[in-house]
Amino acid sequence: MLISDLTEAEIIARIQSRLQPPPDWLLVGIGDDAAVVEPERNRLEVLTVDALVEGIHFDRRFTPPDAIGHRALAVNLSDLAAMGAEPRLALLSLALPGALACADFDAMIAGLAALAAAHRLHVIGGNLTESPGPLVLDVMVAGTVKPRQALLRRGARPGDAVYVTGTVGSAAAGLEMLKSSTTEVTDTLRGHVSLCVRRYLYPEPRVRTGLLLARNRAATACMDLSDGLADGARQIAAASGVGMRIDAAALPIEDEARRWFDAHGGDASTSAITGGDDYELMFTVRPNRTGRLAAALRHGGGPITKVGVCTEGPDVTLVVGARDTPMPRGYGHFR
Amino acid sequence: MLISDLTEAEIIARIQSRLQPPPDWLLVGIGDDAAVVEPERNRLEVLTVDALVEGIHFDRRFTPPDAIGHRALAVNLSDLAAMGAEPRLALLSLALPGALACADFDAMIAGLAALAAAHRLHVIGGNLTESPGPLVLDVMVAGTVKPRQALLRRGARPGDAVYVTGTVGSAAAGLEMLKSSTTEVTDTLRGHVSLCVRRYLYPEPRVRTGLLLARNRAATACMDLSDGLADGARQIAAASGVGMRIDAAALPIEDEARRWFDAHGGDASTSAITGGDDYELMFTVRPNRTGRLAAALRHGGGPITKVGVCTEGPDVTLVVGARDTPMPRGYGHFR
Repeated sequence: MLISDLTEAEIIARIQSRLQPPPDWLLVGIGDDAAVVEPERNRLEVLTVDALVEGIHFDRRFTPPDAIGHRALAVNLSDLAAMGAEPRLALLSLALPGALACADFDAMIAGLAALAAAHRLHVIGGNLTESPGPLVLDVMVAGTVKPRQALLRRGARPGDAVYVTGTVGSAAAGLEMLKSSTTEVTDTLRGHVSLCVRRYLYPEPRVRTGLLLARNRAATACMDLSDGLADGARQIAAASGVGMRIDAAALPIEDEARRWFDAHGGDASTSAITGGDDYELMFTVRPNRTGRLAAALRHGGGPITKVGVCTEGPDVTLVVGARDTPMPRGYGHFR
Repeated sequence: MLISDLTEAEIIARIQSRLQPPPDWLLVGIGDDAAVVEPERNRLEVLTVDALVEGIHFDRRFTPPDAIGHRALAVNLSDLAAMGAEPRLALLSLALPGALACADFDAMIAGLAALAAAHRLHVIGGNLTESPGPLVLDVMVAGTVKPRQALLRRGARPGDAVYVTGTVGSAAAGLEMLKSSTTEVTDTLRGHVSLCVRRYLYPEPRVRTGLLLARNRAATACMDLSDGLADGARQIAAASGVGMRIDAAALPIEDEARRWFDAHGGDASTSAITGGDDYELMFTVRPNRTGRLAAALRHGGGPITKVGVCTEGPDVTLVVGARDTPMPRGYGHFR
């Protein structure tokens, strides 16, 4: 059965059946002209939107539908994480090709709904339309943060240490593996044999780390690495008016990713930091706040690695051996 | 110059240059991982999202770029109007074909920004991506409403009068005119010779009417007629558990639209109520509140017309002459 065999009401019912029961702050949910929500007291609101477009951000030939749904929400949760915000609600705008199989649609929604439930985020509404071309998932999320606790990009100062969560380059390696693999290999990879492929398909946004950093005021600046570490370093440096030196030898690169990059003729460090899709956080910490950082992450903040230091600037460099080299350009949309 | 000649930062700068200065409740705007907003005190929040997809919702051959931008926001403002909410902010997610001319992009943003300014709504952020196919504009808006003042679809009762704002069918007639016109005629129409074409290209969402109805508690139910009056009547009836009788003779149909429908072999009433894109409001009023309604709309609420009455139900009918006929099916996406 194809999505074009269903009415709009039937598609909405299929989505609703996969959502958690509505929270008490949702006064009017799906089914009216708009949703009505009671704001959380004494909190600021953090809002962002991100789109996944077929052919640009994913390839349906090797991205299982549940991963498409998972990633569409994960990229947004990662933005909330980077702000230190607690996820609250999402609006879902879908442009669906008529030939999309209903089973694939259901799996896509299930992937998104599972991640939403894990982060206690509620889908309060959205929009459905046909697409004459690609499948497009546009997700708007809102979260909350206490006044003066939002993590911005602009607070880094010379001397601050630069940290990243998790590993860098895993998702980029995973994507390359998927692109180069035959159908059979892909099926094996879907069984999560490859850590890198799993990191690409099912990124885990660092929501908890962001929350802990915000509450503890341990970080001076923070952003997510959706477009890779090289891009993140440049962005924080530019927003904060500092330079940055990143130590290639300190980069947390998964063994599997390093082997893949080495085997495919690339420099592992460069490949790892120019590849996007990691959805890890980069953040900066004043030297006298290292204790505060340790305290912040004691309760399940996940692995972090110090990868560099902020300088007077303005150069952003990658230190390879003892030599400063210009930070490579990261992935960019458009020109 | 084409959009693919610009960097993402350059495109964002072009958007920002057309926006109003940021309001004081916007603590962090465009340029970080997400926007940070101070909620309005003692208000509920009303959120909605709507997409315009090229080839589905508009045809670039006869829709000027400023009209595309205008309509992308208007459809969302109309949803806020239907809830009685005051517009506050928008997030803008754009999927842009690389071959889009920069001049057209600028005009599109100018059209959207002008309507935003007219309604004191601020664009606080968004997302940009390439599109491998159609131009897609996904707009999320949020507004505010006082507790217990939101206009819902579900409050209509038997005996309530049914009203619509403005006219019905004008936009549908305008769209047909555009579709059937030659290039030369289109150019003339762009000069707003045709009221119907103008209604299609530049719909004016009934934000003020919605606000006045909400504040005065004059309406028992309300929705917008984005998918036509026939659809609106069915939706309010279903949500409220009532029936509805709409009087074909009472429908406010623009002379120009009526002439067009008559000349093109359709029944004017049926054409007017099954066509979408009017973005007028339909609302219901208890008989003893007619005075309250008049008071509500004294201050610039715009023209309204009584078109029918709610019944015990469940039938939704169009009264033609003295005969009840089943309400025609409206426009629907998908099946």
